Amino acid sequence: MFVEQVTNLGKQAKNVSADLAILGSDEKNNALLAIAKGLKDKTPEIIEANQKDMENGKQQGLSASFLERLFLDEQRILGMVEGLEELVTLEDPVGTVEKMVRRPNGLDIGQLRVPLGVVAIIYESRPNVTIEAAALCLKTGNAVILRGGSESIETNKILVDVIREALVNVGISADAVQLIASTEREAVQVLMKLSDYIDVLIPRGGAGLIKSVRDNSSIPVLETGMGNCHIYVDQDATIDAAVPIVLNAKVQRPSVCNAVETLLVHEDIATKFLPLVSEELLKNKVELRACERGLDLIPQAVPAKDEDWDTEYLDLILAIKVVSSFDEAVAHINQHGTSHSEVILTNDYNRSRAFLEQVDAAAVYINASSRFTDGFQFGLGAELGISTQKLHARGPMGLEALTTLKYIIYGDNQIRE
Amino acid sequence: MFVEQVTNLGKQAKNVSADLAILGSDEKNNALLAIAKGLKDKTPEIIEANQKDMENGKQQGLSASFLERLFLDEQRILGMVEGLEELVTLEDPVGTVEKMVRRPNGLDIGQLRVPLGVVAIIYESRPNVTIEAAALCLKTGNAVILRGGSESIETNKILVDVIREALVNVGISADAVQLIASTEREAVQVLMKLSDYIDVLIPRGGAGLIKSVRDNSSIPVLETGMGNCHIYVDQDATIDAAVPIVLNAKVQRPSVCNAVETLLVHEDIATKFLPLVSEELLKNKVELRACERGLDLIPQAVPAKDEDWDTEYLDLILAIKVVSSFDEAVAHINQHGTSHSEVILTNDYNRSRAFLEQVDAAAVYINASSRFTDGFQFGLGAELGISTQKLHARGPMGLEALTTLKYIIYGDNQIRE
Repeated sequence: MFVEQVTNLGKQAKNVSADLAILGSDEKNNALLAIAKGLKDKTPEIIEANQKDMENGKQQGLSASFLERLFLDEQRILGMVEGLEELVTLEDPVGTVEKMVRRPNGLDIGQLRVPLGVVAIIYESRPNVTIEAAALCLKTGNAVILRGGSESIETNKILVDVIREALVNVGISADAVQLIASTEREAVQVLMKLSDYIDVLIPRGGAGLIKSVRDNSSIPVLETGMGNCHIYVDQDATIDAAVPIVLNAKVQRPSVCNAVETLLVHEDIATKFLPLVSEELLKNKVELRACERGLDLIPQAVPAKDEDWDTEYLDLILAIKVVSSFDEAVAHINQHGTSHSEVILTNDYNRSRAFLEQVDAAAVYINASSRFTDGFQFGLGAELGISTQKLHARGPMGLEALTTLKYIIYGDNQIRE
Repeated sequence: MFVEQVTNLGKQAKNVSADLAILGSDEKNNALLAIAKGLKDKTPEIIEANQKDMENGKQQGLSASFLERLFLDEQRILGMVEGLEELVTLEDPVGTVEKMVRRPNGLDIGQLRVPLGVVAIIYESRPNVTIEAAALCLKTGNAVILRGGSESIETNKILVDVIREALVNVGISADAVQLIASTEREAVQVLMKLSDYIDVLIPRGGAGLIKSVRDNSSIPVLETGMGNCHIYVDQDATIDAAVPIVLNAKVQRPSVCNAVETLLVHEDIATKFLPLVSEELLKNKVELRACERGLDLIPQAVPAKDEDWDTEYLDLILAIKVVSSFDEAVAHINQHGTSHSEVILTNDYNRSRAFLEQVDAAAVYINASSRFTDGFQFGLGAELGISTQKLHARGPMGLEALTTLKYIIYGDNQIRE
């Protein structure tokens, strides 16, 4: 039953994708504005549906932070509306031609930017992602199949109804945006095998989901989001600058993937630096888990275990390790990191360059907080997630990540000799 | 046993990849020239090993065309040497920085081109691919694990020995290039799961291999090569130009992926065009398989079956279909094509533009032979294969397809507000 239902979503998305690919930017922007209007008009009904999810969630004993992400009110729906209006102002990447060259035989060869086709997104129970993901796919001419967390099913159903009604109102097929209404896990198993209809699968969420998709999908995958990020405080760091950077990276928003999880400190600066930074971190209620040498310098810390070096806390916890060399720091990062965002704090020219070269991650920083890894901070104007893999898109994914290039060749009846 | 052996290759490749990533272009070019010298010096031994594969192949009853691809002589080894010398002259994409911008907060953010890391390639029994694949990966600073067809195992062993000896001679770890020496299929099953060590898996070969890899790999895959290519002869095509283009696309080299397999002809031009083109094709010993309407115009053709529209012949066979409209042609291509190379022959402005937009393929042509889809013809200077998927690289893959972009951020102690 799931097989047929979910496969039909794939077929319908594929069918509509050719029409979406040739929509003009004005038509796509009109659709976004129609969705914005729908959200405003249906605000009471959306809040009512969200209340059902919230009540079910409370009965299931979901955590306060989980419920906080699930919750919608008038203010948050207005945030969605504003997001759509902003997206309208961004340039549409579809239709641009890159690198057109004339070959010696007279062929003109260039690369036309086109939509990927059909995108499927599996994500957590955050209703704003339903609107954002649908809007980014529409803006880039892609059909999208959404599978949100089961806890947000009532909210997602009405949000997708609003989207589909708006699409029909502006003359676009409703099947441009489809929701997997079943909350069963089997539906995802079926989805992952639909490589005949779906061009890319984007999992957002925890390590378990991402591993399951990586191992089982026959559709190309864009992985997002796991961030076990490090800051390495080099012996030539400026202590007065390093303390606020570490503090910012840990406490400004600990629940996000670009927050720092492990602090590496060179032994030559540890005696001076660790007591100063610990004092500030402890003031901000950060639990400190330190290696043996770190414990000597931070009496309030608890001993770090091996698994701490591999843990993305997403919480007010920081692992701390004293290292004997730059090489040890880089090796630790490349072994334990998740290739997300990595920082060196230093005034040494050679080590700053070596860190950029040698650390294998989507974003590598000299002397700044890791918290900047974000599509808006990087100037992309939008963001679908942070890719931590190397193919196609690495780091914050904006509109361009939802497109591909097709070679176009203008000939004058050339044949190959 | 396989698990441990193949896993070790992955670990060793990963270990050496960090050192390869920071090699300068001169060092990498020296290595390529050392390999070229090794091939020249060891030519007799290589030919001897190849003779063993050829004899085994003959005993196994392999086809003449298979054996022709497997065969090496002095001339072909010289071809490999020249290929390496040409590769030395190409620009190294690693280390360039793209799109560096200064953000309002003073952060300088750009994208540094870096190697993918570890590349694994599964390919057919063509010894030249062993050298080409290893050389392209070396030039781009990637470690590579090679798995060639079992029929070429003796040749591959000595070729990889020559490569590894040359690497050690110029001070590069031999593990930059490793061969899976086992010819068992289980080795590939193990390889496909090594996502902890391998960054990208590139299958080259038949539909069965590609499907197996797509379904079973937990490593991101770059698919190459299947080409069920079409030429659509529009009612406004120039017949005098269309005949030689169809002939070129079918007979110049029928065994390759960019050869045409199906000819679509608009009904308004079929009566004039089909007899003319058939005459030339038949002179060149092409078997013609036509739809019902086509059979009326080509007495020598045999009836096409449904499966013909989905078959990549790679042989002197051409399927022919008369269509009633441009839309029917595009729909046929998008349903039956493999997203490789698709051609329209026309003098109509609007339909030429519509074809470029609406046909979903890696390379879409107006008025030229499909045979140009090739890294050298497109000016890339090298080619690892033709990608028929949409993520990361589409169409001919040159050196850049073996690299990725890493965000680098130069700060002045910025923190996020």
